[in-house]
Amino acid sequence: MAQSVLMNEQELTALLIREFPQIAVGEEFVVESVGPMRAVMRLRGQDKHLRPGGTISGPSMFALADVCLYVAIMAQIGPQSLTVTTNLNINFLRKPESGDLVAQCKLLKLGKRLAVGEVYLHSPGVEEPVAHASGTYSIPPRP
Amino acid sequence: MAQSVLMNEQELTALLIREFPQIAVGEEFVVESVGPMRAVMRLRGQDKHLRPGGTISGPSMFALADVCLYVAIMAQIGPQSLTVTTNLNINFLRKPESGDLVAQCKLLKLGKRLAVGEVYLHSPGVEEPVAHASGTYSIPPRP
Amino acid sequence: MAQSVLMNEQELTALLIREFPQIAVGEEFVVESVGPMRAVMRLRGQDKHLRPGGTISGPSMFALADVCLYVAIMAQIGPQSLTVTTNLNINFLRKPESGDLVAQCKLLKLGKRLAVGEVYLHSPGVEEPVAHASGTYSIPPRP
Amino acid sequence: MAQSVLMNEQELTALLIREFPQIAVGEEFVVESVGPMRAVMRLRGQDKHLRPGGTISGPSMFALADVCLYVAIMAQIGPQSLTVTTNLNINFLRKPESGDLVAQCKLLKLGKRLAVGEVYLHSPGVEEPVAHASGTYSIPPRP
Repeated sequence: MAQSVLMNEQELTALLIREFPQIAVGEEFVVESVGPMRAVMRLRGQDKHLRPGGTISGPSMFALADVCLYVAIMAQIGPQSLTVTTNLNINFLRKPESGDLVAQCKLLKLGKRLAVGEVYLHSPGVEEPVAHASGTYSIPPRP
Repeated sequence: MAQSVLMNEQELTALLIREFPQIAVGEEFVVESVGPMRAVMRLRGQDKHLRPGGTISGPSMFALADVCLYVAIMAQIGPQSLTVTTNLNINFLRKPESGDLVAQCKLLKLGKRLAVGEVYLHSPGVEEPVAHASGTYSIPPRP
Repeated sequence: MAQSVLMNEQELTALLIREFPQIAVGEEFVVESVGPMRAVMRLRGQDKHLRPGGTISGPSMFALADVCLYVAIMAQIGPQSLTVTTNLNINFLRKPESGDLVAQCKLLKLGKRLAVGEVYLHSPGVEEPVAHASGTYSIPPRP
Repeated sequence: MAQSVLMNEQELTALLIREFPQIAVGEEFVVESVGPMRAVMRLRGQDKHLRPGGTISGPSMFALADVCLYVAIMAQIGPQSLTVTTNLNINFLRKPESGDLVAQCKLLKLGKRLAVGEVYLHSPGVEEPVAHASGTYSIPPRP
């Protein structure tokens, strides 16, 4: 873990388990690494994400991009449970391979009220991205 | 069902069950009605869509908007299983009530190669929308 | 003008002239009407907006959508000169006719910090929209 | 110019002048370099792009991002005059400095029918981006 982040991978995983009980954090959604203005997560390919032809579903890719952006922000500012997505735009570029999917998030702006980032989704080992998202989170006022 | 659509609610439900085995069509995701360039779907609120505070998760809202747009397109052009989302942009506007969520899709363009639509998501009986999405599907070339 | 807005068409036109000196407010960009959570503007078709084939350019459509959203917000909250666009997503649907273009904005959310709206762009008298945009403005903290 | 592109900077500039007569190509909008799946353009800061406070306007940033994506695509596929923007999403991140603005486009997908890319906008010499866009162009069928 980079020294300049406020939460490490274990703390972020614990936060996700607490805040997102409906997704299988640590099993399907794994925090791989975080650093300054960056985060990497992995979606472990499992049957329920699959569409016919064996690819991961759009909503699963959306969830992975969204949670990876959340993790990148939390790593920078620490746990702020009322931080919520306000906008997410996703382009689906090509069919993912069956198996895992890796998300790489870079924060483009970390303001007092808004954080903006982009996320690339790749099938591991494949150069061309599967999807690309950009999104905004609203950060609650701090006392 | 309006006469000018090619598939009715039952046929669309059967198509979704076949094409999206990973979502609980007919239980959670229900096709309520379709008409010319329009579709209405309902997400039945259930525990696994909930975030802390009892609201429906972002990925569930994304899934509902995405599948409602798909249903509106299929109703117009008939089953084209290779029709895929290329872009989806969603604005999250306010916390949904716990319970069901209703999606209303209107197609803005139905071209030979691309279809574009917008989707409003509402908690039933509440005037102000919970989220608003716009998205594009790519339609495969037909012989 | 509806009674429930804080600025009328003339006041909004004067504000645009002051805040956006680089666009030809009142000549090319005309505030047609405002009402609760709504605004209508017109872009008068002129040569410099034209692309080959006589259609209005993408950036001109973007500008019209963006300024119409701004006008709808200002009508509700009064002049807040630091209100700025944070996100705008636009789908170009079909070629506009040569001539004018009309924008109809509806606000979907008017919060303390963020306002979100959608904008339809039409060639006058043509039912199918030319473009559809949704966007977010950040509203500065008020004392 | 990289060997693997079909058009060099001079040819692209000539194409822009022909296709976009309403923007001042070569004066305000300058093609700086192109390479495989990449393009760099510069907007020369001039009065009419300025808003109060001396920053470049949103529509000018939109235009720069849009044309830079167009140039990156044309460099790859050669002149296809019916290639048109179908979607563009832009996040405005911070106020640009007065002066020039540089756009860096990377293509994420170059399919037969759709091309998708992202564009970073920077004030020259400033590390943090001013805006970030992603967009889709539709490519006409080739005989």
